[in-house]
Amino acid sequence: MTSSQTLAPHRPLGVAAIGYAFMGKAHSHAWRTVANHFDVPAFEQKVLVGRDADAVAAAASKYGWSESATDWREVIAREDIDIVDICAPGWLHAEIAIAALAAGKHVLVEKPLANTVEEGKAMVAAAQKARVKGVRSMVGFTYRRIPALAFARQLIADGKLGTIRQARASYLQDWLADENAPMAWRLRKETAGSGALGDIASHAIDQVQYLLNDTVSEVSGRLHTFVTERAGPHGPEPVTVDDAAWATLSLSRGAVASVDVSRVALGQKNALRMEIYGTAGSLTFNLESPNELYFLDGTDPVELQGFRRILVTEPEHPYISGWWPQGHVIGWEHSFTHQVRDFLLDIANGTDPSPSFEEGLSVQNVLAAIEASSAASCATIPVVELAETADSSRSFS
Amino acid sequence: MTSSQTLAPHRPLGVAAIGYAFMGKAHSHAWRTVANHFDVPAFEQKVLVGRDADAVAAAASKYGWSESATDWREVIAREDIDIVDICAPGWLHAEIAIAALAAGKHVLVEKPLANTVEEGKAMVAAAQKARVKGVRSMVGFTYRRIPALAFARQLIADGKLGTIRQARASYLQDWLADENAPMAWRLRKETAGSGALGDIASHAIDQVQYLLNDTVSEVSGRLHTFVTERAGPHGPEPVTVDDAAWATLSLSRGAVASVDVSRVALGQKNALRMEIYGTAGSLTFNLESPNELYFLDGTDPVELQGFRRILVTEPEHPYISGWWPQGHVIGWEHSFTHQVRDFLLDIANGTDPSPSFEEGLSVQNVLAAIEASSAASCATIPVVELAETADSSRSFS
Amino acid sequence: MTSSQTLAPHRPLGVAAIGYAFMGKAHSHAWRTVANHFDVPAFEQKVLVGRDADAVAAAASKYGWSESATDWREVIAREDIDIVDICAPGWLHAEIAIAALAAGKHVLVEKPLANTVEEGKAMVAAAQKARVKGVRSMVGFTYRRIPALAFARQLIADGKLGTIRQARASYLQDWLADENAPMAWRLRKETAGSGALGDIASHAIDQVQYLLNDTVSEVSGRLHTFVTERAGPHGPEPVTVDDAAWATLSLSRGAVASVDVSRVALGQKNALRMEIYGTAGSLTFNLESPNELYFLDGTDPVELQGFRRILVTEPEHPYISGWWPQGHVIGWEHSFTHQVRDFLLDIANGTDPSPSFEEGLSVQNVLAAIEASSAASCATIPVVELAETADSSRSFS
Amino acid sequence: MTSSQTLAPHRPLGVAAIGYAFMGKAHSHAWRTVANHFDVPAFEQKVLVGRDADAVAAAASKYGWSESATDWREVIAREDIDIVDICAPGWLHAEIAIAALAAGKHVLVEKPLANTVEEGKAMVAAAQKARVKGVRSMVGFTYRRIPALAFARQLIADGKLGTIRQARASYLQDWLADENAPMAWRLRKETAGSGALGDIASHAIDQVQYLLNDTVSEVSGRLHTFVTERAGPHGPEPVTVDDAAWATLSLSRGAVASVDVSRVALGQKNALRMEIYGTAGSLTFNLESPNELYFLDGTDPVELQGFRRILVTEPEHPYISGWWPQGHVIGWEHSFTHQVRDFLLDIANGTDPSPSFEEGLSVQNVLAAIEASSAASCATIPVVELAETADSSRSFS
Repeated sequence: MTSSQTLAPHRPLGVAAIGYAFMGKAHSHAWRTVANHFDVPAFEQKVLVGRDADAVAAAASKYGWSESATDWREVIAREDIDIVDICAPGWLHAEIAIAALAAGKHVLVEKPLANTVEEGKAMVAAAQKARVKGVRSMVGFTYRRIPALAFARQLIADGKLGTIRQARASYLQDWLADENAPMAWRLRKETAGSGALGDIASHAIDQVQYLLNDTVSEVSGRLHTFVTERAGPHGPEPVTVDDAAWATLSLSRGAVASVDVSRVALGQKNALRMEIYGTAGSLTFNLESPNELYFLDGTDPVELQGFRRILVTEPEHPYISGWWPQGHVIGWEHSFTHQVRDFLLDIANGTDPSPSFEEGLSVQNVLAAIEASSAASCATIPVVELAETADSSRSFS
Repeated sequence: MTSSQTLAPHRPLGVAAIGYAFMGKAHSHAWRTVANHFDVPAFEQKVLVGRDADAVAAAASKYGWSESATDWREVIAREDIDIVDICAPGWLHAEIAIAALAAGKHVLVEKPLANTVEEGKAMVAAAQKARVKGVRSMVGFTYRRIPALAFARQLIADGKLGTIRQARASYLQDWLADENAPMAWRLRKETAGSGALGDIASHAIDQVQYLLNDTVSEVSGRLHTFVTERAGPHGPEPVTVDDAAWATLSLSRGAVASVDVSRVALGQKNALRMEIYGTAGSLTFNLESPNELYFLDGTDPVELQGFRRILVTEPEHPYISGWWPQGHVIGWEHSFTHQVRDFLLDIANGTDPSPSFEEGLSVQNVLAAIEASSAASCATIPVVELAETADSSRSFS
Repeated sequence: MTSSQTLAPHRPLGVAAIGYAFMGKAHSHAWRTVANHFDVPAFEQKVLVGRDADAVAAAASKYGWSESATDWREVIAREDIDIVDICAPGWLHAEIAIAALAAGKHVLVEKPLANTVEEGKAMVAAAQKARVKGVRSMVGFTYRRIPALAFARQLIADGKLGTIRQARASYLQDWLADENAPMAWRLRKETAGSGALGDIASHAIDQVQYLLNDTVSEVSGRLHTFVTERAGPHGPEPVTVDDAAWATLSLSRGAVASVDVSRVALGQKNALRMEIYGTAGSLTFNLESPNELYFLDGTDPVELQGFRRILVTEPEHPYISGWWPQGHVIGWEHSFTHQVRDFLLDIANGTDPSPSFEEGLSVQNVLAAIEASSAASCATIPVVELAETADSSRSFS
Repeated sequence: MTSSQTLAPHRPLGVAAIGYAFMGKAHSHAWRTVANHFDVPAFEQKVLVGRDADAVAAAASKYGWSESATDWREVIAREDIDIVDICAPGWLHAEIAIAALAAGKHVLVEKPLANTVEEGKAMVAAAQKARVKGVRSMVGFTYRRIPALAFARQLIADGKLGTIRQARASYLQDWLADENAPMAWRLRKETAGSGALGDIASHAIDQVQYLLNDTVSEVSGRLHTFVTERAGPHGPEPVTVDDAAWATLSLSRGAVASVDVSRVALGQKNALRMEIYGTAGSLTFNLESPNELYFLDGTDPVELQGFRRILVTEPEHPYISGWWPQGHVIGWEHSFTHQVRDFLLDIANGTDPSPSFEEGLSVQNVLAAIEASSAASCATIPVVELAETADSSRSFS
């Protein structure tokens, strides 16, 4: 396949997705519904890839894919596949993404970009090489495409908050609060890379950088595991990743952000909470009520100031014109639909999607710095320096 | 005592309060603390009046009154008493207030003004007669002096809501939700006049008229008693007042208001909720969070509109400069302090307090119309006509 | 087509939808996604019907229908169509539904059932006639299938609230708050039947009957139009339907419900709010936060009582197992997906869907009684009597 | 004065208060009203002390003190003074408290205990010496006596939350958000000791230790000043204290707490927010709505779990029986009334008040450790070790 074919196929874009668990289902739903709501280039849900032939065949049928397959290498070699959507676990991201990009396929990869900085750097190199040939790549920090958060970014960019001083980001869940919940791949360092840090702090950190349009320059952080042993199939096993993490981040332009995440915050189900405080205004958000954005305009007379609950469901709000009339809220998965829409439009327009692999790596660097700080009794660690050190350490192959 | 003495006593104003139950305690607290927080004319907490000599003596000592007494007639005859604060049950309001006004005493009477329209009309006549002599009178719809509601009135008067179309008022409590709660004087028509209607709908209706600066012209209403019999000291007794009431009110300038109240709304403790919808803005309020006012500015760009939670604790807000710095909230009883402050200032300034007895009667007329409507299968009843009819029916003496 | 074909087609069920505006889009989305999330009988999105050939063709392509058509009569005559989903305006419901049922097609019709009681009665007669042949019919009160409301019904049915005393239902919107919003078919009585009453009070009343599993026996109500004239294409036109409505409802088993609705409640976007108060517990809900149900357990020790916010996103909650992990909220349109799922399962199982046309007519009867009460100065009107009177008045043809 | 006189004066206890600014006003209000609401030993508001003779005389008159004075040393020498209530700025706490205790007076001192650990240690030594003679001492962390927080402590102590894993404490204000707000003594290290850290983080940290009934063993922390220069009377001056602080705390029994505080969080007025997550339940609280406690019972069936809003106004709740009926909320200053009540009862009962000076010092030690960590690039600092080191460093005299 040549890049000219990639850029202007004389047929609908062929899509393959790899993975059919939670994320595969969410991505499939997005591919299935995007054209109902948005004007996008023609595409076809060609093939769903998974390891278990029967299970992936059933999932393909259920989620609207024409075929199923078990060997992702064969699939990315197919002429009729233009887009590879990687929903496999993190430890497979690098290998698949690099191969798919090398094969000239546009690649959408779930977050976090990779389990390690090294893998992430290799992926960035592959993306950069492919980019010059017109091959697009994107990492799936879908929460950027929640209308309320996209609108928050607009308000900040428009100066409605003045200069940002502080951000408070937290992501609280409770699915590991029960100490009898069993061992799983997400609780082993070798498969998951990290625990709450990579899984959910990655979202919080990406939001900090996205909303403030800034980058983290140094961190102090701490990881902690509350339940250190869980029942595995053959008896108790040590939990080798964090249940919770805390960090204080310095941003390049002077803001300070706190981040804390937990999977044992009993009663919090999916509470990604963002609070942004500027010199002229403030914003708050909670993913459990994703259609609501709270905004305080510090330029109002003081007696009229207050956080206003904006129900982000007006046609004037980002993405909403594709959906329902005002007040008819959308759900969690709609941000995946928006992601697929934007990815398809970037492909059609020949523009580079955001968040790029570089942006994904930037989050990865922050995560690594937090781990390093935690290992160094919370001592402050510069993010850039670490990334550069890591850069020279080894190449991925 | 002559009226000139009333207007300019050469000594601190002498205050007598009648009643030391729930309302007497709240009023006493207000007299006790008002001078700590506001510049008011000098006054003295002279005497607390009640039926039980021992109990009232104990209450007087506790609440800061110099003396106690059991005969209110003697007290209102005293030269050193300038102000009579009536916290006795509703069926005593008319008799005491009329006597005190005739004796040249300024009168503050708890709401509702009276148990019946007839009593209310007699009280208004007495107040009008006294007013020409410089004797002041006021009815205790204290919620007008909650800073958030006083501020709401200002916003509406300033046109921030445009033309008001609708008001939604409700007052929900649950202290009678338990069907085993015993019989009490508040549940007998002969002592209480009515149930939830007079006790709490009176507040809701006063707020509608106060906030909108308008009067109710006609109503359709319904009363209902869910627990029709309760245990008395000598066995089951019929409950002869309403547990709940519903009404739709037409205001003179074209707005429509709904009011509903209940004492059996399990889980609602003291939820006086007001919602006001205008052509240019809207407001909501809940007495369970009395320091918060929610305001929506309909002139903002639509994508920025939302109900903003104003924490009404800024020095710019009504009454707040007497209290604490911003964000340090005040409680339910503070509105009683504000009431006493304003009453004292009106006395000192020679101005007429609001709400006047006429305003109290106006609420009474609406309550009576709702009762009449309920008795007439909810048929619409004009408020003015009823008042006029009642007016000619009999005099109180 | 015979009924045996209807009951067991030897091919996927063929679906036709009539209408492609707001409701057509919502229903199409449900057909498009239901099989991604739920195990349902095989079906095909065959044909979308609309008046404008080009527009309906575009919509069909966008929403996943194989074909488009402009003549609904032809479509319901087709052998390969088993299900007719009516999303056309209310004045067409009766004619299409009756014809489709007569042709042996299963019929799903949007709410309200019809614009008048007469039409509704004719539809019920048609549904009853078809039912004995195994032809299914359902009216689209989709909000019954919002997980939080379905769960609320379960809690009440399980006795968690004890005996229900009061319900408070309101539905507030603001899309007509702007007096410059132009005239439209929804504002003319001849096309819309009524205004806020039929459009949104119908939902509130259906919820009262659904949640309480009870029926309204009598009503007092009032309709009001705040903006009585709006700009039409040829100059100002009178608005002939209500902007807002208020009613008090008696339920057959003794509960009392209030209902009020408005399209001019500035700042309220889609606020269907339900509050249910029983002797043992209470519930509240707001459609603007549809994943949340608030429950107070009156059997807890009083010091621990409080409305708890249940995020209705657990696998244990109705319908949720088809969607995402806990805390990942769903949106407004998901209830349409649930509706289609249940309708398909009823067809497959040979069971009668709920809400039936009879249930739809029951709501219609209440709406008519409210209109009659409003015309009679809010006098109380029995619902049953009206229905019976209406019953004998005329047949629909 | 001998200690026996202290323990059983044959007259009402004589009270002197030192300071009449914000805190002096709040304490005075408490002394003025406590006997209205609670049964307490007899006492008299004898004398208010301040530097400006006219101003303190006016304040004394307003706040109900019999006399005023300008020399606190004279006042603590008076025979008729039994209690000294220190509301002066922090840099005076140690000197006054130590002298008063030496004179045999019971001492209540505002928080924080002192500006430095050294001063705090000297105060503890003085308190311990006095304690053996029956002289009582208490530090004014009043928020412990907010009914919702006192109740939270009970619930945790009763095991309702199981084992606590995490606490999240923050205290956000915005009174320094405006960079044009002028210089003040609170912004200079030599007078204020620290900024947000001592002023508001002290409250948050005391709550963590109080609610969890545990002590902080080590910390990592960071201080930051956003507005580094402010206008003083003679031109710009450097701000030498922190505007905001962040810390992660290890508790002795294994819990981890985060604390962050700010005075520039625009729109947050007085938001002390506590979140406590245990193995069996969770709690949240916000001082801006101080009558509300949110509790999640993790032992409920999962489909019924949710944070319940407990309105802490029932007679069963701490302190409430002294106030109003259920649903009638109290304000910020009521916790000062409760503090005075408990202090008086401890004096009468011969029991030691809590929080003791030792508890105050314990908070001071944590604050000092956070400062030390901040100075050491956020490196983790043990709290105990620091205290011991400090202990030997110098004595206060």
